[in-house]
Amino acid sequence: MVNVLVNGIGTIGKRVAHAVLLQDDMSLSGVCDASPNSIVKTNLVEGPLAGVDFFVSDSSFKKNFVGSGLKVKGTMADILKKVDIVIDCTPAGVEAKYKLLYKKKGVKMIFQGGGDKSLSPISFNAVVNYDKSFGVESVRVVSCNTTSLVRTIYPLMRSFGVDYVNASLVRRAVDPWDCKEGPINSIVPVLSVPSHHALDVQEVIPSLNIITQSVKVPSTLAHVHMVHASLRKNSTTESVKELWECTSRVKVLDGFKSTGDLIEHFRDIGRLRYDMPEVVVFGESVKVIGRELYWTHAVHSESIIVPENIDAVRSMCRLEKDGFKSIIKTDKSLRI
Amino acid sequence: MVNVLVNGIGTIGKRVAHAVLLQDDMSLSGVCDASPNSIVKTNLVEGPLAGVDFFVSDSSFKKNFVGSGLKVKGTMADILKKVDIVIDCTPAGVEAKYKLLYKKKGVKMIFQGGGDKSLSPISFNAVVNYDKSFGVESVRVVSCNTTSLVRTIYPLMRSFGVDYVNASLVRRAVDPWDCKEGPINSIVPVLSVPSHHALDVQEVIPSLNIITQSVKVPSTLAHVHMVHASLRKNSTTESVKELWECTSRVKVLDGFKSTGDLIEHFRDIGRLRYDMPEVVVFGESVKVIGRELYWTHAVHSESIIVPENIDAVRSMCRLEKDGFKSIIKTDKSLRI
Repeated sequence: MVNVLVNGIGTIGKRVAHAVLLQDDMSLSGVCDASPNSIVKTNLVEGPLAGVDFFVSDSSFKKNFVGSGLKVKGTMADILKKVDIVIDCTPAGVEAKYKLLYKKKGVKMIFQGGGDKSLSPISFNAVVNYDKSFGVESVRVVSCNTTSLVRTIYPLMRSFGVDYVNASLVRRAVDPWDCKEGPINSIVPVLSVPSHHALDVQEVIPSLNIITQSVKVPSTLAHVHMVHASLRKNSTTESVKELWECTSRVKVLDGFKSTGDLIEHFRDIGRLRYDMPEVVVFGESVKVIGRELYWTHAVHSESIIVPENIDAVRSMCRLEKDGFKSIIKTDKSLRI
Repeated sequence: MVNVLVNGIGTIGKRVAHAVLLQDDMSLSGVCDASPNSIVKTNLVEGPLAGVDFFVSDSSFKKNFVGSGLKVKGTMADILKKVDIVIDCTPAGVEAKYKLLYKKKGVKMIFQGGGDKSLSPISFNAVVNYDKSFGVESVRVVSCNTTSLVRTIYPLMRSFGVDYVNASLVRRAVDPWDCKEGPINSIVPVLSVPSHHALDVQEVIPSLNIITQSVKVPSTLAHVHMVHASLRKNSTTESVKELWECTSRVKVLDGFKSTGDLIEHFRDIGRLRYDMPEVVVFGESVKVIGRELYWTHAVHSESIIVPENIDAVRSMCRLEKDGFKSIIKTDKSLRI
């Protein structure tokens, strides 16, 4: 049994902590945060983290919790002594400070894709480099966009070979709960070519020739990627769909017209928070013309990297040697 | 002097009618519509069409105007006798009915890109096929998306050669005044590959190898296209930008981050209705890597095809044999 701590109970942290609770080979030692905001309180009092021990990330934050109604068991420094691995889900830019503490306490560390690449030498994806992460001290689970591209493209590389990929990313702007940021009405392009997303994918698959362009739009539900891959072997629309249908964490769905009706599907089937950790390919959008493959998929940024975090724990803590066994175990526990 | 009638005073018609008023070789015989809605009344009473003769598109619509305060000079059938050419800006699907009347009255006809391809055998763009339209009876001015792609790609074909183009279209959903349609929060992909936009471009440039993918997003300001063109000759980022900088109706603008600050530019420089009939390339987005060219441009759907309509009149009515002279004349009159 591996003892896991989650630092940062925001969009990612609250989901990852819950996912840890669902594993039979991991124990959630506790969760940490800096302030008793509505997300922290909801999840620890009435939500799926009710009963989990709470620690302040830093002793200087103790005063924030006076009168909050949240019971603080201690500081992160205290609990880290009893922890094997910490999953850092603090806001981008903040992790570097905590990294020093994690190292000092000798715990393994998982960072998220929003953070700087320098946080860890390994950019983790469960399918591509589970082996490489086996027993290591730290990984950075790559971002939602990167994860979706790696999941769809990597099986294509193995089955058909891929000459190059051009992907156009249409990114929802913010999390649904976030009322601070825009845009309200604008379309906001990333002006550098490639956008950083191509470089992120190459952190996981260095041999892949990929260019990305990207815009941000006034939507909160999910990103949409329009992708073109030039394949090395002949294929058909059907064979590509079949390949993805038997690929873990890729879901091909027909009959959906938008991110709106897609999310409604996940509400209707009763997923907690309507989470969609699979990358969902719009079935009708898949088209092979000659050796050129086109498709459009949707990416639920809030949840897509949750299962990857669980697999990262399993690999780093030597709980399971075979990456595919870990993926199957994780997916079963999360009912993916 | 050519006598022009504009049928349909909506988003396109009100702009095209005003543009006709600004030409010294055309006379606006009148404008027609079916109902005294707020756009029709604003433009004919206080707006740029004040003083222009108004006719009901069909006598059955006369009753709509009783008590409206708008003076109806007669029916379209009456005025068509004195008209050389009609620019049809009625809603898509409605034009077919009027086409019968235009033909019966022997007037030349211009249709818009939203209408069916069968309306006319010629898909018009001023740069590509002005000559082909010389003296003809009808053309269909292609849509905003098509126009922007043709304007940017055609000069590339002539200067560098183009092997193929992949364009990802991020379309604003509706006109700013339109409160009926969505989406509010969804991203809505076109599931067929290619989306119809590639076929539309090929109506103008049949030899072009182009694939388009497309989504609709909750924005009203302008479309944004992320484009990749594979060039046949070596080029540089600078040479492509220089080419576009001396291309009519293409504007390369540096220092803009979104469709929002782009439109603010056109508000600040005092353009009527902040119109942007140029396709605007985000300067920093232009990038040549090997023979691959990438760029992002913005398309003001409301106004981009206005100058094309004016050139179409000039070509069809044999007012000017040289397409480039017509373009210069039009652009000067519209202060483009």
